[in-house]
Amino acid sequence: MPSSLDDLQCSIERALHVVGERWSLLILREAHRGATRFDDFKGALGVSSDILTARLSTLVTYGVLERRPYREPSRRERLEYHLTESGRQLQLVLGALGQWGDTYLPRAEGPSIERRSPTGQSVRLCYVDESSSEVSPADVTSHRTAAYR
Amino acid sequence: MPSSLDDLQCSIERALHVVGERWSLLILREAHRGATRFDDFKGALGVSSDILTARLSTLVTYGVLERRPYREPSRRERLEYHLTESGRQLQLVLGALGQWGDTYLPRAEGPSIERRSPTGQSVRLCYVDESSSEVSPADVTSHRTAAYR
Repeated sequence: MPSSLDDLQCSIERALHVVGERWSLLILREAHRGATRFDDFKGALGVSSDILTARLSTLVTYGVLERRPYREPSRRERLEYHLTESGRQLQLVLGALGQWGDTYLPRAEGPSIERRSPTGQSVRLCYVDESSSEVSPADVTSHRTAAYR
Repeated sequence: MPSSLDDLQCSIERALHVVGERWSLLILREAHRGATRFDDFKGALGVSSDILTARLSTLVTYGVLERRPYREPSRRERLEYHLTESGRQLQLVLGALGQWGDTYLPRAEGPSIERRSPTGQSVRLCYVDESSSEVSPADVTSHRTAAYR
């Protein structure tokens, strides 16, 4: 793959350039569950420190996570990793993966996690048009714009 | 990561087990654009034959693509790769990545592709509740089910 975002015109490819490395989306899943500290991510995922350091650094570089200093009593200052608005919006990507996994790679026991609205209703991801009416994925078509080269 | 789907209870992790390898989602993007033949994928992506063979095989194993024989005049029979219903539904994952890339990793020239409804309206991905009312991603909460271990 090209090494720079500038080389990529496809937005899917641009997204994968930032979050498509092995572990990156699982790191973001943990961030969405509230993890902020290096040892939280490491403990939850069992990923090596070298890889975790590299992935966190990429996610910070592209504005998905931001570093914030913290200090525990009588310890040196360290850094936490917090989701930015960009990182929070990746919830849709994680949700799309989870919804697909639940449907097409189901466990015998059923889903381990359910997503709900504030009133307790189950929610699902779908396409909507400009008047918020649902559009079936099969009816969505892709069109090249003037910016396509 | 664990080597078997049976070891994974999280549906996001199950999905990534199947489509999270480097190249897999780009192969699926090409399939959604109409590619079916090995040389189509190879030409569009510039991926090595060995890796493409391995990724196509994984996608067939997990029911995302299916092989169908074809034969051109005076050539031996070969195999095409077609999206299954499971593969077609991955459009939501590709759409979520594209929507996020367009918004948070924008190009100066703007998006190269737009997604539209049958009446030509632009579409976007969002969460809806049981009565098809939109729910903000920030208001969606995750809950462990009885199947969580």
